[in-house]
Amino acid sequence: MHTLGELAKIIDAKLVGDESINIAGAASLGLASSDQLSYIVSVKHKQNLLTSKAGVVILNEDLLNDCPTNALVVNDDVYLAFAKISHYFKKQTTLSDGVHSSAIVNNAKIGSNCNIGQNVIIGSNCTVSHNVIIEDDVVIGDNAYLHPNVTILQGCSIGDNVVISSGAVIGSEGFGNARDKQGCWHTIAHLGNVVIGDNVTVGANTTIDRGTLEDTQVHNGVRLDNLIHIAHNVTIGQDTAIAANTGIAGSTVLGKRCMIGGMVGIVGHLNICDDVIVNAKSTVDKDIKTPGMYTGIMPLMPHKQWQNVGLWLVKLDKIIKYLNIKLKNLKD
Amino acid sequence: MHTLGELAKIIDAKLVGDESINIAGAASLGLASSDQLSYIVSVKHKQNLLTSKAGVVILNEDLLNDCPTNALVVNDDVYLAFAKISHYFKKQTTLSDGVHSSAIVNNAKIGSNCNIGQNVIIGSNCTVSHNVIIEDDVVIGDNAYLHPNVTILQGCSIGDNVVISSGAVIGSEGFGNARDKQGCWHTIAHLGNVVIGDNVTVGANTTIDRGTLEDTQVHNGVRLDNLIHIAHNVTIGQDTAIAANTGIAGSTVLGKRCMIGGMVGIVGHLNICDDVIVNAKSTVDKDIKTPGMYTGIMPLMPHKQWQNVGLWLVKLDKIIKYLNIKLKNLKD
Amino acid sequence: MHTLGELAKIIDAKLVGDESINIAGAASLGLASSDQLSYIVSVKHKQNLLTSKAGVVILNEDLLNDCPTNALVVNDDVYLAFAKISHYFKKQTTLSDGVHSSAIVNNAKIGSNCNIGQNVIIGSNCTVSHNVIIEDDVVIGDNAYLHPNVTILQGCSIGDNVVISSGAVIGSEGFGNARDKQGCWHTIAHLGNVVIGDNVTVGANTTIDRGTLEDTQVHNGVRLDNLIHIAHNVTIGQDTAIAANTGIAGSTVLGKRCMIGGMVGIVGHLNICDDVIVNAKSTVDKDIKTPGMYTGIMPLMPHKQWQNVGLWLVKLDKIIKYLNIKLKNLKD
Repeated sequence: MHTLGELAKIIDAKLVGDESINIAGAASLGLASSDQLSYIVSVKHKQNLLTSKAGVVILNEDLLNDCPTNALVVNDDVYLAFAKISHYFKKQTTLSDGVHSSAIVNNAKIGSNCNIGQNVIIGSNCTVSHNVIIEDDVVIGDNAYLHPNVTILQGCSIGDNVVISSGAVIGSEGFGNARDKQGCWHTIAHLGNVVIGDNVTVGANTTIDRGTLEDTQVHNGVRLDNLIHIAHNVTIGQDTAIAANTGIAGSTVLGKRCMIGGMVGIVGHLNICDDVIVNAKSTVDKDIKTPGMYTGIMPLMPHKQWQNVGLWLVKLDKIIKYLNIKLKNLKD
Repeated sequence: MHTLGELAKIIDAKLVGDESINIAGAASLGLASSDQLSYIVSVKHKQNLLTSKAGVVILNEDLLNDCPTNALVVNDDVYLAFAKISHYFKKQTTLSDGVHSSAIVNNAKIGSNCNIGQNVIIGSNCTVSHNVIIEDDVVIGDNAYLHPNVTILQGCSIGDNVVISSGAVIGSEGFGNARDKQGCWHTIAHLGNVVIGDNVTVGANTTIDRGTLEDTQVHNGVRLDNLIHIAHNVTIGQDTAIAANTGIAGSTVLGKRCMIGGMVGIVGHLNICDDVIVNAKSTVDKDIKTPGMYTGIMPLMPHKQWQNVGLWLVKLDKIIKYLNIKLKNLKD
Repeated sequence: MHTLGELAKIIDAKLVGDESINIAGAASLGLASSDQLSYIVSVKHKQNLLTSKAGVVILNEDLLNDCPTNALVVNDDVYLAFAKISHYFKKQTTLSDGVHSSAIVNNAKIGSNCNIGQNVIIGSNCTVSHNVIIEDDVVIGDNAYLHPNVTILQGCSIGDNVVISSGAVIGSEGFGNARDKQGCWHTIAHLGNVVIGDNVTVGANTTIDRGTLEDTQVHNGVRLDNLIHIAHNVTIGQDTAIAANTGIAGSTVLGKRCMIGGMVGIVGHLNICDDVIVNAKSTVDKDIKTPGMYTGIMPLMPHKQWQNVGLWLVKLDKIIKYLNIKLKNLKD
């Protein structure tokens, strides 16, 4: 809990409102309640500001008149101000030994050198193999199997019948950074969690980052292979399967029953509809609105051939214009 | 051990044969012996069925007449039936503390917080660094060096002079799933192991999945860099070197002395001959039958140029047809 | 310490010089001092040989006359000879339990099942979470936060205010191997370390390899996302940010304030200047000398379209030549 007065000092903001009001956390404009902070980085989101129920909003002067609640007015970049303030709402995990006395582990088989934190709840018939770390406040359903060396970080929740393979990390910090005028990065503390549904499998050394304000979501029945990266605030729809080495950037939403091949890269803030198949190694850089199979790779060639093809590839637009002009000249 | 009667009930199959016969495991049609189960998903493999020595085969009615042994006839998808039954043959690892009394570790130097399971055998002069997990029935040769945080899962075997770097996972479950009519995935329990030869190095956070029925194989002298994914049933030929971030999908066979660049994707069920070089970032989506150097990447360009090139790239076929027609018209 | 006489025997070299001279380590030609060994693989580096202050240089006969110091003359491949000899200078880590008595950990909070080696120094106000391994001679600055399951290997150094996420491996062996005439690989022992500056964050399951002779460097303010591979001898310039799944091959130097997208591959021995943006999934296969935004990916298409485009792509050079000839013929 921090008062608005304290928060204003932290980010050197002008407070428009009551400095004694207490703020307990942060959420996005549309979801924040009266004890939560939010922020607005662009006039594009003005509609969300107008109807926000947040306790306070960080903003620039130009949006102050549209703010229906308390405001922290900064001259600087709003995102940077939020980055600095986010750390004050970050819940820390404790570092006690073994299984914490407040943890409920039911009849779980627990291997050696595990650490299970405060208020963790583990359902029936689970196996927690050797060297697994489960930080505070994690909730795990029934019949989970956590292979050796799995790490589940503070506050994440996992449904029933979930299998997590060795080396997987659930709830790592998202890759969110704000840049100041000197070009230095300021880490954003990620306050959301990872929520994994029922009947999900997570492959070896796969990493799933927690959300910035809300949660990263992996819905029921999802299959994740090895060495996959799921970024902050991604949603993976029910029964979608993703092959190894694939990466999905922040805030992208995948539909249901998609099949994403290996080493596919999906950029951030996209919407992929249900029943999409993306072939291995493709890059998805725009929304997909129609179910079906998609591909985008350069075919493999003998290296010498590729060298010749490559020479023309980089000037394909110029070549085609040139050919068109030639054709036109011939016609005239 | 499960009787055919029990197995028929598990997958709701019609048993053609003796319900009291005991089945101890599973193998592919060509390798299964009289106490093993197999399955056939397509008439394409009929020749293997005709000569199979399996104790029982899961199949659809249409292949029953070609089955020389006991049959479990299902109406449903055969692969799905196998997925369900596979879990009954999965060997579980135990979860005892420290070094199991049945393990033979010779003169190995063993770090702190290691766990070494039942019947593990470790050769002479090995180093097992801190927090290494070696599950039941693993066999490791002489002079191995396992760096901290390595995980070697149940039943895998490793030759002499092998170095495994931190975070590597050997023997994770393969990514094999059968889909039911509702679009839900059913995990296949992987019953094969990983077999690593002599003089192999495995990089940090690399993952090697166990085979479905038979073993994933990494032959003598192979060099694997960091963050590589080797899927179920892959074979990597002798003295092949693979650079970081590369992924090889299921059942692909790589030849000897290949050099695979970083972040290459090799799709499943391919054959790559000996002495092939694949340049970094390429996608291998067909067999390679001729030694030599191969490439398939889009050259890097200033982003603006790429935007122009990309416009034409996606309609390259149409452009070329158009130009051909224009040329023909001019000629006529 | 090994005498020149011993070293000559190890690699079956002809020693030109005093066999009693002691050699304590190895360095590149330009940096080696009188108690260090170096090597020269190609006449291209002759200028560095002529001015080298190394105690001894491994070389082939043809460069002997240009060697200003003691020489180990081999008939074989020089790089292979160095690979064999490198292991004699490799510093081993010890394997004692818990926190070594010689380690200085100040007021660090240390979780359970950690191992902290000989001569480790950890600054003020650090958190070392559960199952973290810190090998001998590592130095960590103030305010570090090491998440569970981090591995920091022998001799690496880390600045102030650094956050390392779960599963990250700092200081794994580089992927350097020399091939003999039989096509077998010989591992090079990597004698350099990893040096990480201040205010750096390293993502989950990211791996940073140590340098061959000198150090791999991650400068102040760098941001590394999850599942990134940084190879031996790479330098990442100040305030550069790199998104997940990216790989950077050996000896490449990235400038300051670069922003590298996810799953980018950067090949080895390149120079990327300051203020470069590389979009996700691109391949960087040549130096970049001009700041700006770069891209090189195949656009995503419906699979059928891609199949048609792909047919022409692999013969783009031939098509363009054909069209040019046709045009010329028409003109004539």
